[in-house]
Formats: sequence, structure tokens, C-alpha cells
Amino acid sequence: MSLAFADIEAAARRIAPHAHVTLVMRSRSLDELAGCTIAFKCENFQRAGAFKFRGACNAVWALSDAQAAHGVVTHSSGNHGAALALAAKTRGIAAHVVVPEGAVAAKLAAIRAYGATLHTCAPTLAAREETCARIARETGAALVHPFTNEDVIAGQGTAALELLHETGALDALIAPIGGGGLIGGIAIAAKAMFPQIQLFAAEPEGAADAFESLRRGVRVIDIVPDTICDGLRATFGEINFSLLREYAVEVLPVSDAQTIAAMRLVFERLKIVIEPSSAVALAAILRHRERIARLRVGAILSGGNVDLDHLPW
Amino acid sequence: MSLAFADIEAAARRIAPHAHVTLVMRSRSLDELAGCTIAFKCENFQRAGAFKFRGACNAVWALSDAQAAHGVVTHSSGNHGAALALAAKTRGIAAHVVVPEGAVAAKLAAIRAYGATLHTCAPTLAAREETCARIARETGAALVHPFTNEDVIAGQGTAALELLHETGALDALIAPIGGGGLIGGIAIAAKAMFPQIQLFAAEPEGAADAFESLRRGVRVIDIVPDTICDGLRATFGEINFSLLREYAVEVLPVSDAQTIAAMRLVFERLKIVIEPSSAVALAAILRHRERIARLRVGAILSGGNVDLDHLPW
Repeated sequence: MSLAFADIEAAARRIAPHAHVTLVMRSRSLDELAGCTIAFKCENFQRAGAFKFRGACNAVWALSDAQAAHGVVTHSSGNHGAALALAAKTRGIAAHVVVPEGAVAAKLAAIRAYGATLHTCAPTLAAREETCARIARETGAALVHPFTNEDVIAGQGTAALELLHETGALDALIAPIGGGGLIGGIAIAAKAMFPQIQLFAAEPEGAADAFESLRRGVRVIDIVPDTICDGLRATFGEINFSLLREYAVEVLPVSDAQTIAAMRLVFERLKIVIEPSSAVALAAILRHRERIARLRVGAILSGGNVDLDHLPW
Repeated sequence: MSLAFADIEAAARRIAPHAHVTLVMRSRSLDELAGCTIAFKCENFQRAGAFKFRGACNAVWALSDAQAAHGVVTHSSGNHGAALALAAKTRGIAAHVVVPEGAVAAKLAAIRAYGATLHTCAPTLAAREETCARIARETGAALVHPFTNEDVIAGQGTAALELLHETGALDALIAPIGGGGLIGGIAIAAKAMFPQIQLFAAEPEGAADAFESLRRGVRVIDIVPDTICDGLRATFGEINFSLLREYAVEVLPVSDAQTIAAMRLVFERLKIVIEPSSAVALAAILRHRERIARLRVGAILSGGNVDLDHLPW
């Protein structure tokens, strides 16, 4: 593994002119409910509405001027696409975003609004990768993969860097896992800062490739996702699997019903808007309370790009 | 008028151990849409979910020990009731809250959760006042009126004190008007700090007693409210009318449709949860853009206690 804490620190310096230092929130009533103390890192307030801007911005600004001149390309069900579009805009370069048919309308509108070119393809990993490869070939654009790209992973890690700078020592960190870029990055940052910290990844039962992979000891790539968490349907990558094992991340599964209940609690008690993929972290804290009771926990609320016409409760 | 800036400063000191210093948010995209720059004071993050805690807390802690021992009583369609219940709890005294039939369920649950005693009455001003008077007579509880009480008005003013301490000089402040306690308090604070500042009150067209009163030059008290803004249905008081005139507050009416659209924009762009009564401020900025264009505006987002099962769009 070539990624180290220095890469997270470099990412933090690189994105500082562009990214927000997001708010950390606490709630007495949620602490009482959960039996632990939770510092919520509000990445729903990040630019483009999700932590994804950190990684995308780091990747865009890590390119040489010669590479950057040809633009960037990626595939994304939404938040990474919007993040890369905005990151490219901060550097004044072109962005191509390959999106699967059926992606959330609000997320597609955001990608377009940031000036990127949308390319629709069938909702399969093969179709996405082929379309990306073709565009890269035709335009010379640099591929910025949503979660296996090392600059992306390093950028996501800055969320933990900021959180732990603000809170000081915590006993545990928990973040959603989809492709695994976020939990990988924050694991590198958190373990370097506080070696005793425990790391948890919250994963929908209907897209439990990380949970199954750790259980079986091999990367499971044949799970067909069935979850309301549209940001967590990706099949995680080899580098992401390696990071999970290297940093002893424990995966905590949650049902969609638990995720929806947790999402509603966040709206009601924190008075903030998050998307289902963000709510898995609180859902896991509440479901697996015996693993987390009495700890000082940092929870990454990963984004807020929810379709307000179709709230899930 | 006996209320002065010193009263607001005293209120700020009195409530400091109990109330939150709330976040101030900005949004590039909302600024572009509105054609001005807006600093949103997020009172939805205040304790009990609304600015009302400021006034209630100031009133509760301004009581002598002998008065406080008998508890407090008020009538409120919701947020002031919850705020007074929580304020009473911070001092360990009893709270009685008279609520009209048909009040928002989530707000009633909050009042109960803070340990207050609920008393239901018919949804008329006469019924509320009679019930309050009876309870005060029977228990000796001090009446804390939701918007004519001077300690309440002074407490609400601390929202502007905090906002202007954080932002420095602004050209205008805008807040919702229901009973008028909030706009009255912030007018006193803001004009003392920045004498040139313009003051605007945003009011639903369906409850336009303040607008009509200023137009006719007499306090209009016979308007039957018809608006989605459940926190803005009260008929404002004599002291509140005096403050509007003394501080040259301009009332900007908005339709419920404009309020709902603005509420949705806040959810979408700021990623925070507010109630309809809060959204009137942004709705007025967008509707009356010729009055506000290019100004540096402070807008009070007054609360976040919305019924999540019945969002209005």
C-alpha cells in the first residue's frame, strides 16, 4: 500500500482553497438514544453536497497542467459525478461524467449545472467502464475513478483529519461504505493520529459486499445491490478491500428500514438534510449499540443530495 | 417604550449558560438567485428548535426566586410553548402551556417531553387568554406571554446581537412576523449596533395583520389567519405595533406558495430543515427583490419544528 498519512495531509493542503471545513454537530437527545457520544461530521454541507468533493478536488488538482488540459472523466451514480464536475470547474477544465440509466434526477441536474458533459449508459459496471474508457481514448481525459483512485482516497481522508483536529481523541469512527474510498481514506488519517481508534463501516444489508468479503476472506464482486442507499451500491475495489483489512475495519450491516428511521431522526433532531446513504452510520450505531456503547464516536454524515419529492418515510 | 439595547445585552448574559450560539450560514447559489448576499441565522438549531427559547429563557430567569417558585404559564400554538417548557426545566420550575385544538402534533409532543403540563382550549384568542388567566389564578404561575412580554422581546433580540457580532455591518435584517416579538427585539438590537440598518418583516398574505395595521395606521385585530405558517397566525400586540413604527420596520407580504418554494430551496441548497414560518424571510427576499437587491442581508431562519410526515411540497 503506497498511501500514507502524508498523502492525506498533502490532500488537505491541496483542497483547502476550494473545499469547506464542514460543521461538527452534536445532539444531547441522540446521544441519550444511542448510549454513546456522537460527533457528526456534516459532509452534507460540503460543496456539491457530499464528501465526494474532497477526493475529486484532490484528484483534479494533483494532475499536471499537461494532463489537466485534456479534462477528466469518471462514472458515478451521482455524488462523485457532481463533485468531479465542480472540481473540474474550479480548475477550468472539462469533465465527462458517465451515469447509469435511472440515477437520481436531482443528482444529474447538479452535474449538468456544474458544466460537465453527461454520458448515459446501461446500469452495469461493464457498460460504465467501457464508456469511460472510450471517452478517455477519444478525448485524452484522465480517468478519476470514484473510489479506487489513490488521490480520491487521500482526499476523502481529509474528512477525518478535520473532524479529529476539532474533537481531539475519539474512541471510534464510523462511515458508510459503498466503494470504500471514504472509509479507506479516513482509516489512514485516523489511525495515524490516534492509533487506538476503532474503525467501523456501516453497510446496507442489501449491498453487503464488504461484509461478505471480510467474512469469506476474498473480495466478493457478484452481489446485485438492492438498497435505498443509492450512493452505496458500488462494488468495492481491490485497493479498498486491502485497506479494510490493513486497518482492521469492522463492517456493521443495517437494514433499509433502520436506515430510513435513522435518516428521519437526523432530520428531526439535528434539523439537517441528509441522504439515505449518510444515515447508515447512525443506523449502525443504534443497531449495534453493544459494540459502541459509552464510546466517543465520530460519525461521517456523507451527503445531503436527497430527492425531496420522494423522502422515504 | 421602556425597552432599550441594555435590555438585549442583559438578556444575552442571562441566557448564555442555557441557549446555543447558533450557526450563520451562507450559500453562493442562493445569493445568485436573490441578487444580494444573505447571512442566514439558523435558529432552527436553537434549543427546542426555534428562536423562541431565547425569549422564554430570558423571561424565566428574570423572575425572582419567589415568583419562579409558582412556575410559569403561557399560551402558544407550539414553539413558544416548547421553549417555555424547556426554559422552566432549566430552572427546575413548573410550566403550564395552553394550546389550541389542532396544533401541530410534533410540537405538542415536544412540550410534553420537556415536562410541561398541557391544557387544551378552543382555537380562539379569547379562549386562550381565559384559560391562561384561570391557571395563573389557581397556581400563582407567572404569565409569560409569547410576544408582548418585554423580557421575551428582549430575549428574541439576542438573535440579532449574535448575528451582527459575527457578520459585522449589514444593510438590512429580515425576520418573520407573527406576534411581533422577534422583529421587535431584533430591531432594538440592530438599530443600536448599526443605526443605518433597514428592517424588514416577512408576513404571510393570509395573516397580514401587521401589513394592514401599518397601512391603515391603526392596529388591525380582526383578521382571521389562513396560512400554512402555523407559527405566524397570532394577532400582534400593541407593544409590537409600537416597535414596528418606532423602528420603521417595513412589512413584506408573501404568498404561501412563495413560502413553500423558499422552504424547499432552503432544504435543497442549505441542507437544513426549517418550518414554513421560517421560510417567509427568504420568500420575501425573492419576491421583493427590487427592495433588497445588492444589499448585505441578515435573515433569521426562525425554527425547524416541521411535521416531517406532511412536508408542504
